[in-house]
Amino acid sequence: MELKNDLLLRTVRGEAVERPPVWLMRQAGRILPQYRAVRERLSGFKELVETPELAAEVTIQPVDALDVDAAILFSDILVIPEAMGLSYEMVEKRGPLFPETIRSETDIERLLSGEEAAGRLGYVYEALEVTRKNLAGRVPLIGFSGAPWTLMAYMVEGSGSKTFSRAKRLLYQEPALAHRLLGKITQTIIAYVKEKARHGANLIQFFDSWAGILSPEQYREFSLPYLREACSAVSEVPVTVFAKGAWFALPDIARLDCQAVGLDWNISPQEGRSRVGAEKILQGNLDPCYLYADPEKVSEATRKMLEAFGSRHIANLGHGVYPDTPLEGVHAFVQTVKGYRYHRQ
Amino acid sequence: MELKNDLLLRTVRGEAVERPPVWLMRQAGRILPQYRAVRERLSGFKELVETPELAAEVTIQPVDALDVDAAILFSDILVIPEAMGLSYEMVEKRGPLFPETIRSETDIERLLSGEEAAGRLGYVYEALEVTRKNLAGRVPLIGFSGAPWTLMAYMVEGSGSKTFSRAKRLLYQEPALAHRLLGKITQTIIAYVKEKARHGANLIQFFDSWAGILSPEQYREFSLPYLREACSAVSEVPVTVFAKGAWFALPDIARLDCQAVGLDWNISPQEGRSRVGAEKILQGNLDPCYLYADPEKVSEATRKMLEAFGSRHIANLGHGVYPDTPLEGVHAFVQTVKGYRYHRQ
Repeated sequence: MELKNDLLLRTVRGEAVERPPVWLMRQAGRILPQYRAVRERLSGFKELVETPELAAEVTIQPVDALDVDAAILFSDILVIPEAMGLSYEMVEKRGPLFPETIRSETDIERLLSGEEAAGRLGYVYEALEVTRKNLAGRVPLIGFSGAPWTLMAYMVEGSGSKTFSRAKRLLYQEPALAHRLLGKITQTIIAYVKEKARHGANLIQFFDSWAGILSPEQYREFSLPYLREACSAVSEVPVTVFAKGAWFALPDIARLDCQAVGLDWNISPQEGRSRVGAEKILQGNLDPCYLYADPEKVSEATRKMLEAFGSRHIANLGHGVYPDTPLEGVHAFVQTVKGYRYHRQ
Repeated sequence: MELKNDLLLRTVRGEAVERPPVWLMRQAGRILPQYRAVRERLSGFKELVETPELAAEVTIQPVDALDVDAAILFSDILVIPEAMGLSYEMVEKRGPLFPETIRSETDIERLLSGEEAAGRLGYVYEALEVTRKNLAGRVPLIGFSGAPWTLMAYMVEGSGSKTFSRAKRLLYQEPALAHRLLGKITQTIIAYVKEKARHGANLIQFFDSWAGILSPEQYREFSLPYLREACSAVSEVPVTVFAKGAWFALPDIARLDCQAVGLDWNISPQEGRSRVGAEKILQGNLDPCYLYADPEKVSEATRKMLEAFGSRHIANLGHGVYPDTPLEGVHAFVQTVKGYRYHRQ
């Protein structure tokens, strides 16, 4: 199906475009009343993730309501650990919880991986198909996946954590086990995102949400090699890597086989470009909290950000939009980008 | 009283020393069985903070048990908000909680500040006196304070948070109020640390624990000017600034009127030195999780860190030691530093 709005894809291909495309991480979610209405009818978060028609519905909501340049399939990064055999719960106001965690070599050996694990995620691929059909080519569809280290962190820690000290302890005490686990996760991620591309994802974004709690040395040992393997394996569609907090690793990330690199709001666009180099498209990076400000201030900050990035840029926040963000702020952000033009003078 | 071990003070004065001094952030605390024994007898954390003899006892424990080169007075950064009129609770396994938070101009006007607030912290000054007496000049005594932005973050948010989006919302929605609050906090901090210096603190460390959730621009507006004011006001004793996660602000922090700059474990010693420049003493920065490893691996990593920093360095972790850290790891870290000599060949 030909896309009516292919601005995002033209941008990641490095073509000259009229303005940057815009979408928001977590745009399908609690910021939208339409989403909250769907969610209230359901038993919980996982019912939404696992029901293709509903996942497709909330995926398309922000395309209608916010007029963004891309849809991102509503899902969760923890579907992969679950497919590998470690099921998770989503506890209201607390976040994810794994009743069982990875403790030993036996636990790791027991996990499914690769196509065998990815094959259990039929509901995701079906959600992609339904979304693609209902989107009818309006905008490209992004599929995402957790990065290997981030998924490992949850599988060992068992929940979110300020320090992830249990997961990091494994890196220091049993590095060989950690590598074995990361290898199995990576094989699953590869099979999963290839399947996603086959079912209609036009771009894949890897989220390394917990990159920033590793030291530069550990990031190079336990995250980068696996990200590299995953990026290189996905040749079907373009790839974005977003490693939150990993400013120190940006020069390495810039050498991955990916098209775009996400930046969080801790780095200025100028410093981001200087660390990543000229080749990649940059994505980001307004502080999500900026959207709490008056719409005029949001527009002003957004324009300033666009000027600072210049071309080869995908406009986004520096992290997922916060659930209590006022819609006026979100609209101001999106509309400012959509009204912007490169080389206006 | 003359100090028997003044290595830390000679180091921050920039003198040539035989090896770096070593201490650990949060060395007085749950890692020590002696601390846990004291804590079990008490009703709670605040009783320990507010009872000078007990605070002194646990402050000296790591000097005895770990043989570190400095004591750091056991206390909490939230004693300042409390002295200003906003009392906190310490909830077991959850962290600090403020039953009331700052919401309006009236809330801010109501707060005490400066000497009036600092004057309510007699128990801290008494704890310093008792500690100094009982330390009998064995090692220098460090006093700490939260940095203005970090204290404001707690006072507005009401508790720890992954995003501190409530506190950051104030910065974006009501910057004038935020500045008013930061000003009052800063005046209190200044009066407080001056009093601490008068009562025996040999060095002051400012902790900007939530520096890393601000964008570079916001850090320059809402944290740096107040840190600058606080640093400049403290001329009695040397000052260390530790702004966790604020790698982007290191060149600015290097221009503050302080003697030492703390680094977290996200930055390599080389990059830390290059961002801070030659003038300041650097403190840090082994990943606290490294102490979970075998003692030999800890020693190896510690030596590597010492080599990478070279001289003008205070050995420490990149954050507070985690409560479940095995003592062998802590000993290996401290003893490796104590056995190290500059220019050995």
